[in-house]
Amino acid sequence: MAEVAVLGASGYAGAIAATLLWRHPFFELKHVTARSEAGALLDEVHPRTRVPLVLEDWDPDVQGEVDAALVCWPHGVSAPAVAALRERGVRVVDLSADFRLRDQAVYEDWYGRHGAPELFGAAVYGLTELYREAVAGADLVANPGCYPTAALLGLAPLARAGAIADVVIDAKSGVSGAGRAPSATTHFISADENMTPYKVERHRHTPEIEQELGVLGASLPVTFTPHLVPLAQGELVSCYVTPATELGEGDVADLYREAYEGEPWVEVALGPPGVIEVRDTNFCRISAHRDDRTGRVMVFSAIDNLWKGAASQAVQNLNLMFGRDESEGLR
Amino acid sequence: MAEVAVLGASGYAGAIAATLLWRHPFFELKHVTARSEAGALLDEVHPRTRVPLVLEDWDPDVQGEVDAALVCWPHGVSAPAVAALRERGVRVVDLSADFRLRDQAVYEDWYGRHGAPELFGAAVYGLTELYREAVAGADLVANPGCYPTAALLGLAPLARAGAIADVVIDAKSGVSGAGRAPSATTHFISADENMTPYKVERHRHTPEIEQELGVLGASLPVTFTPHLVPLAQGELVSCYVTPATELGEGDVADLYREAYEGEPWVEVALGPPGVIEVRDTNFCRISAHRDDRTGRVMVFSAIDNLWKGAASQAVQNLNLMFGRDESEGLR
Amino acid sequence: MAEVAVLGASGYAGAIAATLLWRHPFFELKHVTARSEAGALLDEVHPRTRVPLVLEDWDPDVQGEVDAALVCWPHGVSAPAVAALRERGVRVVDLSADFRLRDQAVYEDWYGRHGAPELFGAAVYGLTELYREAVAGADLVANPGCYPTAALLGLAPLARAGAIADVVIDAKSGVSGAGRAPSATTHFISADENMTPYKVERHRHTPEIEQELGVLGASLPVTFTPHLVPLAQGELVSCYVTPATELGEGDVADLYREAYEGEPWVEVALGPPGVIEVRDTNFCRISAHRDDRTGRVMVFSAIDNLWKGAASQAVQNLNLMFGRDESEGLR
Amino acid sequence: MAEVAVLGASGYAGAIAATLLWRHPFFELKHVTARSEAGALLDEVHPRTRVPLVLEDWDPDVQGEVDAALVCWPHGVSAPAVAALRERGVRVVDLSADFRLRDQAVYEDWYGRHGAPELFGAAVYGLTELYREAVAGADLVANPGCYPTAALLGLAPLARAGAIADVVIDAKSGVSGAGRAPSATTHFISADENMTPYKVERHRHTPEIEQELGVLGASLPVTFTPHLVPLAQGELVSCYVTPATELGEGDVADLYREAYEGEPWVEVALGPPGVIEVRDTNFCRISAHRDDRTGRVMVFSAIDNLWKGAASQAVQNLNLMFGRDESEGLR
Repeated sequence: MAEVAVLGASGYAGAIAATLLWRHPFFELKHVTARSEAGALLDEVHPRTRVPLVLEDWDPDVQGEVDAALVCWPHGVSAPAVAALRERGVRVVDLSADFRLRDQAVYEDWYGRHGAPELFGAAVYGLTELYREAVAGADLVANPGCYPTAALLGLAPLARAGAIADVVIDAKSGVSGAGRAPSATTHFISADENMTPYKVERHRHTPEIEQELGVLGASLPVTFTPHLVPLAQGELVSCYVTPATELGEGDVADLYREAYEGEPWVEVALGPPGVIEVRDTNFCRISAHRDDRTGRVMVFSAIDNLWKGAASQAVQNLNLMFGRDESEGLR
Repeated sequence: MAEVAVLGASGYAGAIAATLLWRHPFFELKHVTARSEAGALLDEVHPRTRVPLVLEDWDPDVQGEVDAALVCWPHGVSAPAVAALRERGVRVVDLSADFRLRDQAVYEDWYGRHGAPELFGAAVYGLTELYREAVAGADLVANPGCYPTAALLGLAPLARAGAIADVVIDAKSGVSGAGRAPSATTHFISADENMTPYKVERHRHTPEIEQELGVLGASLPVTFTPHLVPLAQGELVSCYVTPATELGEGDVADLYREAYEGEPWVEVALGPPGVIEVRDTNFCRISAHRDDRTGRVMVFSAIDNLWKGAASQAVQNLNLMFGRDESEGLR
Repeated sequence: MAEVAVLGASGYAGAIAATLLWRHPFFELKHVTARSEAGALLDEVHPRTRVPLVLEDWDPDVQGEVDAALVCWPHGVSAPAVAALRERGVRVVDLSADFRLRDQAVYEDWYGRHGAPELFGAAVYGLTELYREAVAGADLVANPGCYPTAALLGLAPLARAGAIADVVIDAKSGVSGAGRAPSATTHFISADENMTPYKVERHRHTPEIEQELGVLGASLPVTFTPHLVPLAQGELVSCYVTPATELGEGDVADLYREAYEGEPWVEVALGPPGVIEVRDTNFCRISAHRDDRTGRVMVFSAIDNLWKGAASQAVQNLNLMFGRDESEGLR
Repeated sequence: MAEVAVLGASGYAGAIAATLLWRHPFFELKHVTARSEAGALLDEVHPRTRVPLVLEDWDPDVQGEVDAALVCWPHGVSAPAVAALRERGVRVVDLSADFRLRDQAVYEDWYGRHGAPELFGAAVYGLTELYREAVAGADLVANPGCYPTAALLGLAPLARAGAIADVVIDAKSGVSGAGRAPSATTHFISADENMTPYKVERHRHTPEIEQELGVLGASLPVTFTPHLVPLAQGELVSCYVTPATELGEGDVADLYREAYEGEPWVEVALGPPGVIEVRDTNFCRISAHRDDRTGRVMVFSAIDNLWKGAASQAVQNLNLMFGRDESEGLR
């Protein structure tokens, strides 16, 4: 058994992470924190969790007394808490963007000043399927963004094969991706029966996707545009690849089959995936197609933005960090 | 006054067309037809229409006694009815795909045998904003498909400027686009909280978009992928253009402002449009952006698939065919 | 022509009222106001209105220079503005609850101190179908609440016949009824795929329903429970009446047919209504049933909460106050 | 270990039952059947199940070779299959209505001729919380209807206390309750943004509710009206009780606390429940209120119609029938 805390358990991803850890065979959920809702029970704030723990104020002397922590806070405020936890020897999965980028100048360009520069570069990028071994030995894991998770799992086989000359990523996400804070954007009347592109040209997941595509062998500027669609959870990433090399339909199929054979949480589907098929799961479901008319390769990748795109992937990583089966507590 | 019939008024587009014509100051709606629901009142089948006309069986000797007809039937079965109406001198707007393509071999390749080959090529392509003058003198107008309407209005300014080297069109549509016939796809439980690409590589609107882009000056194979999203009416087309020439942000803005200045039904917006903004209207709302990082030009174009994408554009065309203000009865 | 102002045009009902008046053949919309969004164009805030007027700060010397005003403000703050407008001779339809109740003690019990006690009792209750003649001569009309509109139109024929011994009103409303302010309740993730009773035992429309049922002849305490359902606009009120007298199925049908024969905006339907059938209209659609097994009479009444339940009924009243056809500008 | 078959696994409830049993620690899922989709894998038809079993045709010699079966077929066709299974000694939970009623004349009045009259009366009514002991010893359990499950759990404490003089049950259900067959009713465009009462006066769950209220001590005709609301899974039953005796707010609270203390799957909530709180669970969540103004007692009861209202309650019963913890495999 290892004791664990979830910081920021009143947000959507935090609440799901707490739920998974509350029922986890190995981890024991000791603390959950929240700012404005401290003092309430988590299952009063989020009845679906059925976790009867009191939400606490963040106090390193309290929540720092555990073996591991998931930090579900926004970028900027996350880094100092992570630093405080690391000082106490707590192993951390950070769900914010604070430790995902490898180049501090790029971080500052897209996010502003970093909250714990001494730790910059200290984390393993926790896209489990791509960094499984590094995660297993890590004390600090930067959990990927939701869009990068879907996009990178979708594009990795092509990137590794050197097959991407250019790529357009048109992404669609349910409203939970916008967070729990009430706003004009998240108002039911704004989102219902509507869909719209947002953060055109400047969504912060862009440099994260570009960085990791580069690691995989595809260093190129990426066109990435997210859209808001009227559903709660679910993310679909449609990737349009101009291939760098001649690829037949069979070549594409082979690449994906080989890449994900034996992967417990990546499903290669024959037809295009629907997000409902991965709802409330840690699965990423992918289909890849070559259009004979245009030669373009199209990849569709679906995840639940709150699960594989956040909470359940964090638990998947935590499992590995403690030498457990990565799927423990996730089925 | 001119007398008009709507064939296929029990479908979604037909019912809206009938509603618009029932309240139209110039046209008098005399007949509405339906196959399986003949005998019922239109407003029993579609209460929102509040059109208390009896749905009739199709009979050229009955509905052919009018001045004009909208034919809201599926491709294939539409063409023979159109031919019968034209023989009687009825001016026709056909909402099917039967008369949209200019090359019969292309038609047959995507749709199969044509139902009235003697009329092939006789229609004006009724994308009103691009063919206004030809529509005004036409007896037979082929109303555009919903995706081509949004995509072509979105891309026309770039195509005319010779600025399109390559284009990816990622389209999203509400469920009414799948028609009124109950099916696994249109079941609430299939569509709700889901989104998925469909007809990947082989949606029939592809050749229509390519044909008209070619007319505008951009002859190239188009990558076009539609997605189903959980809302009733509304279509968003996201176009990713690799520009053929250097274009600055200001150039792009100028192109769109000049193209659509004075157009009553095209709105050039500063920010990306949401489909709710054009719901139940004849408007097409467009924003165009140049991404400085990648040089890519992105155009987002939103319509109501049943209105500007079908019924209201048909009335817009009918107005022009009868020398009326194209906006009559549409506000 | 009469000049009109809409106070509170940035709310949902105010925006629709402004849209209707902008296109109205008799009224000329001169002013629209908003608090936090003053300075913006109405159609920037609400693109669907397509009303290019600048939202102004409330100033009696500016907006008081019109012939009529719709006040779309919350209860409490509405009354003083109404008083200021009335002092300048402006005829007013007030959409708040401030002038609906006839007993000031009841008002204070449910709403607190009244903002313009000198005007208390001065308004005509503007449920048009029940108070048509009084509205026609009125300078100040209190527009009914959305639930009372649906419930009273549904129950009036039974109440007038002395047929109500007891009544349970189970009401369901779309999310726009909760207003435009972002909150935990109106967050997409709270409302989507959910439904829940709210304000159990203490919704403020209860005394309004009881008051008007009393006027109609049914003085009794009413059980009224609203529920939130995941749709944007639409309200369904299910009334379960224990009849005071023997009523056959035919008696019930006769009562409703006679009550609403010739009414332009009340539809008596054979089967139970769906809210989509009245969406974006001034219609109230009602069906009445007698259950042979239990003797209970059930009435289902559907309106669009923002239209007949607020904005369009306000215009209907305004038309009457100025001697116009009550349906002008509403079709 | 016990071997189990699910008949009718291609329906919504059957697919969930199969999913629960596939991962169940005690039961081993050996067979799943379907009519038109026989030959396909269950997880092709229902990807969310991730059950890679081939759907088989129904054959008593094949699926009858198990220890237990869940029959998820419609009433009428279910009874003969149940009889064939019982003849082979298979213990059965039947999810249809065929064995729920105790009076054959009532069955025939509401459902028509019974398909296995020799078995009529042989089943235990499987509302687990009310019939736990009888279920434990049963070979044939009639799984309750979804509405009766919610209504009876909501009303049982009052019924047992002799406190119900009259009751109105206004029920609201998501669209999955209408089944998987595509129809005009289940079309996305019919259900989306709509809500409507259905089967007014004649829903077949009425006699089932009356029968079981009678057993609990409240023999009275019940007014029961279901409504369709635009969500996938979830059922809310609002019960308006005219009390037979004086009941204070505290009395009501005591009744419910005492009735459900220690129940693993019934939650007594302070505020009114939302259906999302029980989504994808076996929970029933109830709040009870006494309105001081009217003396009326109101009970709100929420379940997931496909889980506690069908599939998961069936597994709860199956657990008991085999001497297992009733919650096994349900968390």
